Amino acid sequence: MAERVKIGQAVKAQAMLVRQLKEEKADKDKISEEVARLLQLKAQLGDGAQKFILKCPKGTRDFDPKQMSVREGVFKTIIDSFKRHGAETIDTPVFELKETLTGKYGEDSKLIYDLADQGGELLSLRYDLTVPFARYLAMKKISNIKRYHIAKVYRRDNPAMTRGRFREFYQCDFDIAGAYDPMIPDVEVLKIVSEILSNLQIGDFEIKVNHRRFLDGMMACCGVPEDKFRAICSSIDKLDKTFWADVRAEMVDEKGLDPAAADKIEKYVKLRGRTELVEELQKDENLLKNTDAVEALEEMKVLFKYCDIMNITDKVKFDLSLARGLDYYTGLIYEGILKGPEASTPGEAVSVGSVAGGGRYDGLVGMFDPKGKKVPCVGVSIGIERIFSIMEAKLQAENAVIRTTETQVLVASAQKDLLEERMKLCNELWTADIKAEMSYKKNPKILSQLQYAEDSGIPYVAIIGGDEIEKGVVKIKDTSTREEVEIPRAELVSEIRKRSESK
Amino acid sequence: MAERVKIGQAVKAQAMLVRQLKEEKADKDKISEEVARLLQLKAQLGDGAQKFILKCPKGTRDFDPKQMSVREGVFKTIIDSFKRHGAETIDTPVFELKETLTGKYGEDSKLIYDLADQGGELLSLRYDLTVPFARYLAMKKISNIKRYHIAKVYRRDNPAMTRGRFREFYQCDFDIAGAYDPMIPDVEVLKIVSEILSNLQIGDFEIKVNHRRFLDGMMACCGVPEDKFRAICSSIDKLDKTFWADVRAEMVDEKGLDPAAADKIEKYVKLRGRTELVEELQKDENLLKNTDAVEALEEMKVLFKYCDIMNITDKVKFDLSLARGLDYYTGLIYEGILKGPEASTPGEAVSVGSVAGGGRYDGLVGMFDPKGKKVPCVGVSIGIERIFSIMEAKLQAENAVIRTTETQVLVASAQKDLLEERMKLCNELWTADIKAEMSYKKNPKILSQLQYAEDSGIPYVAIIGGDEIEKGVVKIKDTSTREEVEIPRAELVSEIRKRSESK
Repeated sequence: MAERVKIGQAVKAQAMLVRQLKEEKADKDKISEEVARLLQLKAQLGDGAQKFILKCPKGTRDFDPKQMSVREGVFKTIIDSFKRHGAETIDTPVFELKETLTGKYGEDSKLIYDLADQGGELLSLRYDLTVPFARYLAMKKISNIKRYHIAKVYRRDNPAMTRGRFREFYQCDFDIAGAYDPMIPDVEVLKIVSEILSNLQIGDFEIKVNHRRFLDGMMACCGVPEDKFRAICSSIDKLDKTFWADVRAEMVDEKGLDPAAADKIEKYVKLRGRTELVEELQKDENLLKNTDAVEALEEMKVLFKYCDIMNITDKVKFDLSLARGLDYYTGLIYEGILKGPEASTPGEAVSVGSVAGGGRYDGLVGMFDPKGKKVPCVGVSIGIERIFSIMEAKLQAENAVIRTTETQVLVASAQKDLLEERMKLCNELWTADIKAEMSYKKNPKILSQLQYAEDSGIPYVAIIGGDEIEKGVVKIKDTSTREEVEIPRAELVSEIRKRSESK
Repeated sequence: MAERVKIGQAVKAQAMLVRQLKEEKADKDKISEEVARLLQLKAQLGDGAQKFILKCPKGTRDFDPKQMSVREGVFKTIIDSFKRHGAETIDTPVFELKETLTGKYGEDSKLIYDLADQGGELLSLRYDLTVPFARYLAMKKISNIKRYHIAKVYRRDNPAMTRGRFREFYQCDFDIAGAYDPMIPDVEVLKIVSEILSNLQIGDFEIKVNHRRFLDGMMACCGVPEDKFRAICSSIDKLDKTFWADVRAEMVDEKGLDPAAADKIEKYVKLRGRTELVEELQKDENLLKNTDAVEALEEMKVLFKYCDIMNITDKVKFDLSLARGLDYYTGLIYEGILKGPEASTPGEAVSVGSVAGGGRYDGLVGMFDPKGKKVPCVGVSIGIERIFSIMEAKLQAENAVIRTTETQVLVASAQKDLLEERMKLCNELWTADIKAEMSYKKNPKILSQLQYAEDSGIPYVAIIGGDEIEKGVVKIKDTSTREEVEIPRAELVSEIRKRSESK
């Protein structure tokens, strides 16, 4: 008994210590949090009589039926392409053990949403789909899979909702895991990106490619010390939005790079091209000394040969300034970029933004395997939120009618007391697998029924009245042409089917 | 400047106070949490050399491609039915402001997952889809909508994964919001449940119905005091799993009900039937005095008339013991129950479990509206996880091959050095929108290629070799019959299309 008390005391003391240490560390953060909370509370109290704020959490949104309709259309195009290439799909939980995510995102780890400690495991919301995928492969000991995964991920980032940056957003990932021959799965990923961006019809695009080992080799040849590779890489990555002078300043002044090395880098990162550029670089004596550069260029040459076969060479461009942020890439990297309207002026293409990105990551799965067993992977993430925004703007500009249902027929009546007759007719249509609706009012007005059909884009209205019932007929009204025909009731199903097919 | 310092100090002092108060309150909880954490840590350390545990969080799971295939099939059947009835779909964020969920789930609130307080708003994971739906309607001031929503919800419940109870699970909700005439939207919900359970082909089922206002009226007539209605209701709800004697004991001994009232209740809750039962109850002089009972019975009579028209009366049964847990129901309530194999013995149907449940809730949206404006709603939630489990077991029992891809053709070669030829052929097929795959190895063995086609259920293999290329032909092998034919390469696409249609 005394011992149990002792243990209890020891545990308590330990708990107190843990708490104390945590508090000291968190003190500064907490004060500013509390200030924010109090200010928010004040704002709420000033807001009026409402019991609570009626809103979505910051950086998130509801999708209304029109947005869902656009979203489903985009998903269909993307999934069709994944399936055309034989992909399976998987799903993982929305949260992972906190430690599964630890040490995978570098600086960005501060953006991870943690769950409150309510006893039990410490959990975090997934930050992307790649780490859960790697965890899945290691846990199930899978060494070959071609899968897609479309799901929401969570980042406590500064939201910019009009530009499509949210705290809850979809990712749409396709990856090929397995030890295969060089560039064969890689080129299929590029082919898929090309198919998707073509089929979405959201404008001209280009897929920039580079190679992590080429970048490393190039930096080494320019005199960048190895411990500065990642830092200099992340400066290079800013070249699509920043002038060279500013990037150079960052490299030299902030990151302490030798100015001579920066000048050598400049010569390379301005280069763009295809096979001819690869061949030119293969003659560069500076690079020839570096195994990484030599092997990467050999792979790039093979890649462009395969691109020729896949008919995508005109979309793919070797761009020596492409670096991509994430640490875990080990081979080919790429980004799908939509070109602006200026794209029509030759040579002056202005990129309006990245809508797909990915690369080869041969080491990530090994981080999860108890024995460090590697599973080489290559994949891409489609920037679906940006694509939604573009698609919504496009449909708005076209003044397109976005249907939110697939209803084929509205069953209506022009007279009172025909509710049961409408129900009967609806039931006949449903039984024949025809999508049908009726008003839930006992005696709806005929005009409001017709208006509803027009507003929701329902192509046909089946109208019944006392006369029609007596004669065993139904009136079909075409919502767009407003033409009416009377047909035998027994032919309604086949008539709707025939008309729906020809529409 | 001095003032800013003062404000700063005041804010700090306030923050300290807030923290102190919280700490005191949380002290007891925290100690037990710390103990749990330390024990867990110890368990991990004892586990061996592995850096971390490779697992999904407790009560959650990954879906592998086979499970996803089953899941997508079930979703398709359900969504088809929703769309047949003209439903739209919406989506809401996975978390809500904590206060949005507060006070909606009674005792179960302790099962809500909270997010950690990392500054900013206090958030919780959604517990169901109904409260977010009500918040959505109130926020967007929508008074009419027929929508479905399929998404994951989160409950810190005790998981029983083999019986389909998870901490992360899908809900699949269909609701009709709007002020309409009695029982018209309600019967359509029952029709949809009936369609879905029929189309899923998971065995015989029955939809039990009751009415909250009838239950209240019946309890009043039996002498249950009004403040005990909900408590007695929840006892009645246990009758599907518990003997009457035990339920009675709970009512009388635990909940302090007058034994005479319990005996009167017994008489009612044993009743089952359809229109004839409604009519019988309408003659019950005891019930006739109670407006709630009288009006509810009138509605039940109307419901069964509509069920006749919709052809679902044989599936629907008035069951006076059905009570349903949730507080917010205000009218018709129902539950879809799968009958066990014993269902074939007449009158002895044993329910193997609820797979759908719902009812009318006319007050919930008003809880979110600043002015309390009500939007009447009726809806149903399909118990999708249970259905997945049943479906998986069924497919396993049937020894069914579950395909995880839709690939139509595997492009293979019997000789070495034909990688580029395989790529070319794949590219031709993809361009024609045929789903095709090939090995990512440079020189795969023909046997392993054929084995892959068989294992993944790919119906055709297109084989090329040096001879075939020279002659401009392709060999098509049928994976199931193993028959081979040689056709001109130019006819490959049309041949695959033709064969795929007839399969």
